Amino acid sequence: MSTSLSTTPLAIDGVRLGCAQAGIKQSDRDDLLLIELAPGSQCVAAFTRNAFCAAPVVVARDHLNERTARYLLINSGNANAGTGESGHRTALECCHAVAALCGCESCEVLPFSTGVIGQPLPVARITAALPAAREALRSDGWSAAARAIMTTDTLPKIRSTRIEIAGSPVTITGIAKGSGMICPDMATMLAYIATDAAIEPEPLQHLLESAIAPSFNAISVDGDTSTNDACVLIATCQAAAPRIDDSTSEAYRLLHDAITQVCIELARDIVQDGEGATKLVSVTICGAASHNEARQVGYTIAHSPLVKTALFASDPNWGRILAAVGRAGIEQLDIQGVSLFLDDVQIVAHGGLCDSYTEEAGRTVMQRDAFTIRVELGRGNESATILTCDLSYDYVKINAEYRT
Amino acid sequence: MSTSLSTTPLAIDGVRLGCAQAGIKQSDRDDLLLIELAPGSQCVAAFTRNAFCAAPVVVARDHLNERTARYLLINSGNANAGTGESGHRTALECCHAVAALCGCESCEVLPFSTGVIGQPLPVARITAALPAAREALRSDGWSAAARAIMTTDTLPKIRSTRIEIAGSPVTITGIAKGSGMICPDMATMLAYIATDAAIEPEPLQHLLESAIAPSFNAISVDGDTSTNDACVLIATCQAAAPRIDDSTSEAYRLLHDAITQVCIELARDIVQDGEGATKLVSVTICGAASHNEARQVGYTIAHSPLVKTALFASDPNWGRILAAVGRAGIEQLDIQGVSLFLDDVQIVAHGGLCDSYTEEAGRTVMQRDAFTIRVELGRGNESATILTCDLSYDYVKINAEYRT
Repeated sequence: MSTSLSTTPLAIDGVRLGCAQAGIKQSDRDDLLLIELAPGSQCVAAFTRNAFCAAPVVVARDHLNERTARYLLINSGNANAGTGESGHRTALECCHAVAALCGCESCEVLPFSTGVIGQPLPVARITAALPAAREALRSDGWSAAARAIMTTDTLPKIRSTRIEIAGSPVTITGIAKGSGMICPDMATMLAYIATDAAIEPEPLQHLLESAIAPSFNAISVDGDTSTNDACVLIATCQAAAPRIDDSTSEAYRLLHDAITQVCIELARDIVQDGEGATKLVSVTICGAASHNEARQVGYTIAHSPLVKTALFASDPNWGRILAAVGRAGIEQLDIQGVSLFLDDVQIVAHGGLCDSYTEEAGRTVMQRDAFTIRVELGRGNESATILTCDLSYDYVKINAEYRT
Repeated sequence: MSTSLSTTPLAIDGVRLGCAQAGIKQSDRDDLLLIELAPGSQCVAAFTRNAFCAAPVVVARDHLNERTARYLLINSGNANAGTGESGHRTALECCHAVAALCGCESCEVLPFSTGVIGQPLPVARITAALPAAREALRSDGWSAAARAIMTTDTLPKIRSTRIEIAGSPVTITGIAKGSGMICPDMATMLAYIATDAAIEPEPLQHLLESAIAPSFNAISVDGDTSTNDACVLIATCQAAAPRIDDSTSEAYRLLHDAITQVCIELARDIVQDGEGATKLVSVTICGAASHNEARQVGYTIAHSPLVKTALFASDPNWGRILAAVGRAGIEQLDIQGVSLFLDDVQIVAHGGLCDSYTEEAGRTVMQRDAFTIRVELGRGNESATILTCDLSYDYVKINAEYRT
């Protein structure tokens, strides 16, 4: 996570994006995005595992199983979640409208929605704005697209990179949105990553699953897993580099590493722009008996309101961190084996305060915009890192006033 | 939870309480409490399951295993948690001091601490104040005791009741403290309940476990399980009513029900006085396949920052409640079977919005000081109720400024 990729989007051959103002929640901004994929593109996706997944998630999953996607339609301002049968109908109506306008099958359209839960999707406004979105389709539409899908986000999230595979350039561009209800579970907020690399569906799916594990699936703003999480990975197969047939080749590894890096940086952007967030905090758990155990402890710290308010206050209240470790449900945790560090400052050794530790040293780290809480469990060699943010007055303000 | 017990404490024969100012964190209030139990008393306790349990918890548990308790020493202002070996030593030193002063064995003294985690216990100040606390011992000391154990609590928590067993009066009085770091796990914040009933240790232990399940173990302010939770149940055996030998008798049932009611009301007091809380909310999950499943869903709702901020805003943002149900980890949840009510207002039926529902009706309920969120899962006949509160600006304020 040290190198930073470009936030200036590079175009991807075979992908065009067009935005329009549908007036779904507000009337003064783009809130509808149409993405067109050239024929021959591959598209895979991961979705939320929230049982109350939104209607568009159900429809998109069905359509992906049926046919290769040609169009993605994304609206912000309304999640079309918790809307029952009629929500399912409106999601399908959106697909029909795209199909009729663009001359494809409905099942070649994937719908996505993000915004308020539980209100009927204003489908007429969406279909009315569709021609304008189609009219606007262009290959350099990534920046406008990243803005159109925002809800409580304060900044668009874009990352681009170019690598070489077998001497030929391959380009990757990704956009994401998300700020609250962030605790992705096997998927994430809305994220769309495209490459012109040529790759078969099977290794592409494998790549997606591998790339989201350390990125979108390792972040938390508030522990609330969204009903609408989706991460889409597109390969237009238009680059000159040789086609990737399996996940063992060097070409796969190169593409995998680059896409994972894009996902990690987009995920970091989401946490950094977390609702009310003033700090970006990596929670790294080492010395765990298993990766799952490390994640469990990491998430317990990352979700603790007491830890998060201490982060907001730049208060090195390490007792709250230990208390979170202690209640994380780890069987037979020997607290004598536990050490705690804030960046390079060691606070706890053998379950108790280090003699060398001073409040001043702890506070100096906590005042940084970004730092790492590292817990050594002393139980094994597994580790995990969860990226999170603090809990501020503004988180309460944003979420107490969201619908007003 | 409808009947309310008296908040005016009744004395319990065989229990005397004395407070003193030790100046542990502040100098202008009582922060030390000594409780004396008459010979022949029975005393059982339940403690936190946080692996980072505080030194006094370890010592109190050891002493309870060794001998029947004669004295309880409780300090507020410092939790003596995360203090390693020296913390254990200071907890023992407190017991030695009580033993020397009062003429008992050290292992007949149970120490308890609550307050800031991770700072050395100022044991000299405590031992210096001990004679004053002993001097102050009196049977009507319950109100002062309830105040002396407060930390961020804004109100003392006391409940008393008197029942009749076999024609003889039996009295029960309990006090508790707790406001933040509240998500008890098999025990609770500090709570001390005493009765003059005569009862054997085994049914007394059984009674304690049964009484805390629907009370202290069914509440949450912030999902953070404390390192110092302890609930102590004392029976001085001085009442004239016949001795209770087992947990199947009618006398046991009468005592059980009365003590459970005391625990439930003290637990409710804790949530009502939750840090920054403006609302008391019962989350009732019905139609679950198991009691654990019902608790799991209830706690997921009760811990959701998005639900809690909506509660604060009196915003019937039911989509957040459904989203919490959906991510609660229930296998194969059929969302078509889910219904949602705010008090008597039905919002969701068959996983979707009720036609009859209006925002106004939802908002009217949400504006109440206390109300119930009821979720019907439609999977079975088990249920559970979790008591919680909202997440307000003041929660952030209190916890961002706790140590300053």
